[in-house]
Amino acid sequence: MKTGMTHLFIPGPTNVPEAVRRAMNVCMEDQRAPDLGELTIPLFADLKKVMKTTSGEVLLFPSSGTGMWEAAITNTLNPGDKVLMSRFGQFSHLWVEMAQRLGLDVEMIEVEWGQGVPVETYEQRLKADTSHQIKAVFATQNETATGVQSDIAATRAAMDAANHPALLFVDGVSSIASIDFRMDEWGVDCAVTGSQKGLMLPAGLGVLGVSQKALEAAKTSTMRRAYFEFNDQLALNKDGYFPYTPPIQMFHGLRASLDLIFQEGLENVFARHYRLAEGVRRAITAWGLRTCAVEPKWQSNTVTAIMVPETVDARDVIKYGYTRYNTSFGTGLSKVAGKVFRIGHLGDLNEVSCLAALASAEMSLRDAGAMIVPGSGVGAAQEWYREAHAESVMVAAE
Amino acid sequence: MKTGMTHLFIPGPTNVPEAVRRAMNVCMEDQRAPDLGELTIPLFADLKKVMKTTSGEVLLFPSSGTGMWEAAITNTLNPGDKVLMSRFGQFSHLWVEMAQRLGLDVEMIEVEWGQGVPVETYEQRLKADTSHQIKAVFATQNETATGVQSDIAATRAAMDAANHPALLFVDGVSSIASIDFRMDEWGVDCAVTGSQKGLMLPAGLGVLGVSQKALEAAKTSTMRRAYFEFNDQLALNKDGYFPYTPPIQMFHGLRASLDLIFQEGLENVFARHYRLAEGVRRAITAWGLRTCAVEPKWQSNTVTAIMVPETVDARDVIKYGYTRYNTSFGTGLSKVAGKVFRIGHLGDLNEVSCLAALASAEMSLRDAGAMIVPGSGVGAAQEWYREAHAESVMVAAE
Amino acid sequence: MKTGMTHLFIPGPTNVPEAVRRAMNVCMEDQRAPDLGELTIPLFADLKKVMKTTSGEVLLFPSSGTGMWEAAITNTLNPGDKVLMSRFGQFSHLWVEMAQRLGLDVEMIEVEWGQGVPVETYEQRLKADTSHQIKAVFATQNETATGVQSDIAATRAAMDAANHPALLFVDGVSSIASIDFRMDEWGVDCAVTGSQKGLMLPAGLGVLGVSQKALEAAKTSTMRRAYFEFNDQLALNKDGYFPYTPPIQMFHGLRASLDLIFQEGLENVFARHYRLAEGVRRAITAWGLRTCAVEPKWQSNTVTAIMVPETVDARDVIKYGYTRYNTSFGTGLSKVAGKVFRIGHLGDLNEVSCLAALASAEMSLRDAGAMIVPGSGVGAAQEWYREAHAESVMVAAE
Amino acid sequence: MKTGMTHLFIPGPTNVPEAVRRAMNVCMEDQRAPDLGELTIPLFADLKKVMKTTSGEVLLFPSSGTGMWEAAITNTLNPGDKVLMSRFGQFSHLWVEMAQRLGLDVEMIEVEWGQGVPVETYEQRLKADTSHQIKAVFATQNETATGVQSDIAATRAAMDAANHPALLFVDGVSSIASIDFRMDEWGVDCAVTGSQKGLMLPAGLGVLGVSQKALEAAKTSTMRRAYFEFNDQLALNKDGYFPYTPPIQMFHGLRASLDLIFQEGLENVFARHYRLAEGVRRAITAWGLRTCAVEPKWQSNTVTAIMVPETVDARDVIKYGYTRYNTSFGTGLSKVAGKVFRIGHLGDLNEVSCLAALASAEMSLRDAGAMIVPGSGVGAAQEWYREAHAESVMVAAE
Repeated sequence: MKTGMTHLFIPGPTNVPEAVRRAMNVCMEDQRAPDLGELTIPLFADLKKVMKTTSGEVLLFPSSGTGMWEAAITNTLNPGDKVLMSRFGQFSHLWVEMAQRLGLDVEMIEVEWGQGVPVETYEQRLKADTSHQIKAVFATQNETATGVQSDIAATRAAMDAANHPALLFVDGVSSIASIDFRMDEWGVDCAVTGSQKGLMLPAGLGVLGVSQKALEAAKTSTMRRAYFEFNDQLALNKDGYFPYTPPIQMFHGLRASLDLIFQEGLENVFARHYRLAEGVRRAITAWGLRTCAVEPKWQSNTVTAIMVPETVDARDVIKYGYTRYNTSFGTGLSKVAGKVFRIGHLGDLNEVSCLAALASAEMSLRDAGAMIVPGSGVGAAQEWYREAHAESVMVAAE
Repeated sequence: MKTGMTHLFIPGPTNVPEAVRRAMNVCMEDQRAPDLGELTIPLFADLKKVMKTTSGEVLLFPSSGTGMWEAAITNTLNPGDKVLMSRFGQFSHLWVEMAQRLGLDVEMIEVEWGQGVPVETYEQRLKADTSHQIKAVFATQNETATGVQSDIAATRAAMDAANHPALLFVDGVSSIASIDFRMDEWGVDCAVTGSQKGLMLPAGLGVLGVSQKALEAAKTSTMRRAYFEFNDQLALNKDGYFPYTPPIQMFHGLRASLDLIFQEGLENVFARHYRLAEGVRRAITAWGLRTCAVEPKWQSNTVTAIMVPETVDARDVIKYGYTRYNTSFGTGLSKVAGKVFRIGHLGDLNEVSCLAALASAEMSLRDAGAMIVPGSGVGAAQEWYREAHAESVMVAAE
Repeated sequence: MKTGMTHLFIPGPTNVPEAVRRAMNVCMEDQRAPDLGELTIPLFADLKKVMKTTSGEVLLFPSSGTGMWEAAITNTLNPGDKVLMSRFGQFSHLWVEMAQRLGLDVEMIEVEWGQGVPVETYEQRLKADTSHQIKAVFATQNETATGVQSDIAATRAAMDAANHPALLFVDGVSSIASIDFRMDEWGVDCAVTGSQKGLMLPAGLGVLGVSQKALEAAKTSTMRRAYFEFNDQLALNKDGYFPYTPPIQMFHGLRASLDLIFQEGLENVFARHYRLAEGVRRAITAWGLRTCAVEPKWQSNTVTAIMVPETVDARDVIKYGYTRYNTSFGTGLSKVAGKVFRIGHLGDLNEVSCLAALASAEMSLRDAGAMIVPGSGVGAAQEWYREAHAESVMVAAE
Repeated sequence: MKTGMTHLFIPGPTNVPEAVRRAMNVCMEDQRAPDLGELTIPLFADLKKVMKTTSGEVLLFPSSGTGMWEAAITNTLNPGDKVLMSRFGQFSHLWVEMAQRLGLDVEMIEVEWGQGVPVETYEQRLKADTSHQIKAVFATQNETATGVQSDIAATRAAMDAANHPALLFVDGVSSIASIDFRMDEWGVDCAVTGSQKGLMLPAGLGVLGVSQKALEAAKTSTMRRAYFEFNDQLALNKDGYFPYTPPIQMFHGLRASLDLIFQEGLENVFARHYRLAEGVRRAITAWGLRTCAVEPKWQSNTVTAIMVPETVDARDVIKYGYTRYNTSFGTGLSKVAGKVFRIGHLGDLNEVSCLAALASAEMSLRDAGAMIVPGSGVGAAQEWYREAHAESVMVAAE
């Protein structure tokens, strides 16, 4: 029988803070109560701060993040529209697949798994598209399957260099609220995320940032849609209401999680994610292994995909972690199945929790046949965390 | 400052039982854990029992019930398909609107608000449709806005009398798990419900029953869809998984609510809903008022819409209930705004809670200017509840 | 099977507010953590406000209120000390019994159940005690068994009139935080209460107010004691710590309940208790019944003991309430068993909840054979609540 | 700002399992409800199983464990009775102090801190006490302050060798339900424990096992007592009730924790405590440090007190653990203040949690100036846990 806590190190759903769990444990309420807006209206305002937009809107749907991919597409594009996408992991792959199902004409750039958005290629294609057939550019800021972070500022720069008017859609599901995201500065038109990652909530609430340009496009879009219709939401959201029964318990949780984020400070949240992730990377180096992200610039601060030695099946690492050591690691999906296991290190975590993940990974790796030195990764990460703490104290003292 | 509990008598979200609240208060889990199916697979099986289907399937989406309307349409029909619908309240109205938005050719029967599905007219239209242009027949089993219950068995009988092959879609959002629903016996092809009504959960989980005939139709349907695609769900559900992060906390809650339902017994749940509703109706009679449902056969066992005297604005009743007596009643929507207020009496309730609702309604009605006798409705309902209890004891003793 | 909530109308444990339940649902913490005092020190300060003392101290023990009776006695008195007590209900009876067990010489005044502290008799005895053999005077502010409220100010006045130096001990278990209590003004030396009444917490935390005079007496008291030793607490409390593992979850709950009390305003809390209690009394009059408290001046604002007609067994009322209508009423204890049932109306309640209690009582009374008119009590209470609301609005408007 | 969980490694309160937290989150209930015994009566029966007694009784008080020390003494002994005690840590020290305060004549054996009950000396004293002046022998099974486990079977053997009729009192606060305890077999007359250790509940419920011999002694005991009176409890417990308002929420939690214990199997719980503790000891050896327990036979399986190097202040280790790494370690109390820090490893824990404690301890030790190798302890513990897991699989396969 399993005892104690299950150590959860998947890249979502992430660990829900106690304060958020408490906040969600509410009696049901009337979704038409005259004072509902006191709860809901500030949520929209605060989510805009998280996305760093003042001109855009944020919408909330009872949905997973996947639904937000669809909402972005069906509200702003037209059947047959050409779009520019790239694929370098399971989630960018699924987005492409959805775009095709929804009737878009996808120009898709295949990229080696381990790299991210091919900004140079994007720029070339956009420059070549002088007739502006491309209506939207898609970028996955953080490919959860490979632990690869892409450069959205550079993506915008590529569009600007081509002087291209396409919309920019960003999948920020496993980055927003954990890694810096600047909707206005980067000119993002649809920013997709979900509740169960950096927002530290259970799954079930889709969050979508939309620019004025996206809202303008929605006026003429002829795609069929109903559930994900922007206008139904916007018409009621301004008074704090919703077109169909919203999950109010999630709103209470969101209130608590936003409070935690702002108490810590958004930039401090990002710095912490870097600090924790870097500890994991130091451990990997100490083990003599490497990340799926092929260069440091691609390494994600929210999830790390670890390449196991060739003689080892990564599925064994995950299996032993779960069955023997009560730890949930992320599995390798599709192309990298058996080759990587993933440590999610986003959301509500701290140094000692990451060390627990690494200690569990060391046991699981050794059980699976990897010849790593027990304690080596944990020790290396410890030294980094001590050093980072000392530095942070110095910075604070200045 | 409000003290004590808010008395919630809206027709959804309904009061979540303590056992369900407890069950939902969980740490997050890996949605790809090898043992997830131990939780999820029985949920599908048990929901089939609730819908009374052995041949169909039940699907679960992170969505409100509204999304299930869309899932039913987009998976089984084709652009431009003709469908037969009727409108007699805000929710049947919205379903018509969605069908039109999604590109269906709606043959819509307008019915006086206070009545339900016009079975005879349906039969005529279906008999007249000898070329079988009508691809689906839509029926709202319980119109939440007016407290009107329709006869689905008779709807099926009308289709059979016409020997018509159309699909039958039923909106059971505010009826399933509270009022008898027989998916197989009535030949329902898509049965729509949500988590926040008879299933006694918070909002956020859409539940859809689909027949084999509906699944067959899905194979050739050409409507654009992605998030609500049946096949993505079905391919993974059989092993207990989902195509995107599911709200696992809701599954734990659903487990607890299904346990409660089966412990009480599904037929006992229905009997209780009748018993509680009848007490409310006795009170209304004692007040000298009447229900929006124009005949007893239309009166719903899950929600009652009460017509206020002409000199009274029903919005005042609701306002005083909320601001003075900490009670949430349902408002009158659209055509009946100001004319009715609604008492939701579905889900986790008992006699004394209904009497609380009636006592609160009496004060609110009097505050709003209605000349009813204080205690009259409560007294009438009490006598019915005592009598019903005595009868139930006699039945049990036989 | 029972469905819906159990309607709890006993005089403790009382209904715990949702905010308090949430606050108590915490991970365990180190009771020696350097920052524990941030939580605990303000609790002592705020409990002093509730007891209206600035010069005294408040102590917290893992214990029921009964333990606080013992703490008061064993810390301040000496074996064989003479004390003046009165008995007019089960709880004043038990306090007498404890005093005798602990070796005190109890001068006990028997009073008819239905009356309270016999202030005139107290004054006579104290005046007669010219040698000051009486070391302490005991007064039960609210006798929970009979719903009788006593006059503590008058008790103090009697002591002052006799110019008597005895300590004054008050049992405020079912009054403090619900009915006005003025520790300093009334010269109370030991004020006993528990967590599960007006403080709206679960049982388990004993709360004791002690005056400087009591603390002085503790220095020379020779009674054997250890667990309930004042000094062990006081030595550590000032830094926010405790001599043995404290129930920290209860402290979090207490924080939340004190916040609620101060948000509402202590005087408003008292006014609400009067308002709700008066509604119950109006109902009793409408039923043609009477309270156990023999005169209005003895009627408690936290609990009402209702005399049933002679032909009725009050135990049946309680039994039917519980088994048929999911309602917990308080039973008649000892001398009044079978003659009264009690409605607790203290803590986190509102008007509609009290009406639910009355509606349930009406059904239970009728089931038990009482010839009351259904709805009569509920109707009378409704009219009072409406009137009281209108008045409160007028007062606020002035 | 602290993020993520606080890692709690003190020897009580221990981590409360999620299932227990959920179970405790209940609405209040009537402590006189006719069906309360369905909850409470099995608790007494199951606690007897935990204590391994069939002939004794178990009592439950709203109290900390300290109160149970007092209950044992005041119910069974007489003022001035001679008792045999030993002192080798803060908690055995406090028990001696209580016995003296309560008026016992304590024959106290001072033992070096790091050792436990001096069984040989006990035997000598008991043999010398031919007139049987010693009425009770006290033994602390697990001295929480030093991480020292004593041999209760040997204590009983010493009493038997002296053919001595004294009562045997055992402090099992930090051992019962974690380390084997055999009340009947060892002839224990009063077995003291509390809710917040091996029973995995919050603090607040005292648990006391009493033998028939102790109950017999209670009949003639003349010590003053009231709150902790055995007979008041026993008279009501048999029907499932209590002499004063019990903390029912704790009973629900106890139900859940007993279920967990029996699901795992009591002997498996003990084996797990050994396995986890041994990992901590392997780490200490790898660090080049030693435990406060001076010999392996004294080493406790529930808490380890670690001697820091002479140049290090153990208070710094604890301070850095708490302020930098969100970890609560136990402090050194009294004589060993500054010399030891403690890791509590009892209750609801698993291997990876213990590794987290060790990783945090390594960082904290290094921050405090200890020259240990980072990762060395964690690595050593990992190898033990892997080995222990492999062995357990082999045992299970046989």
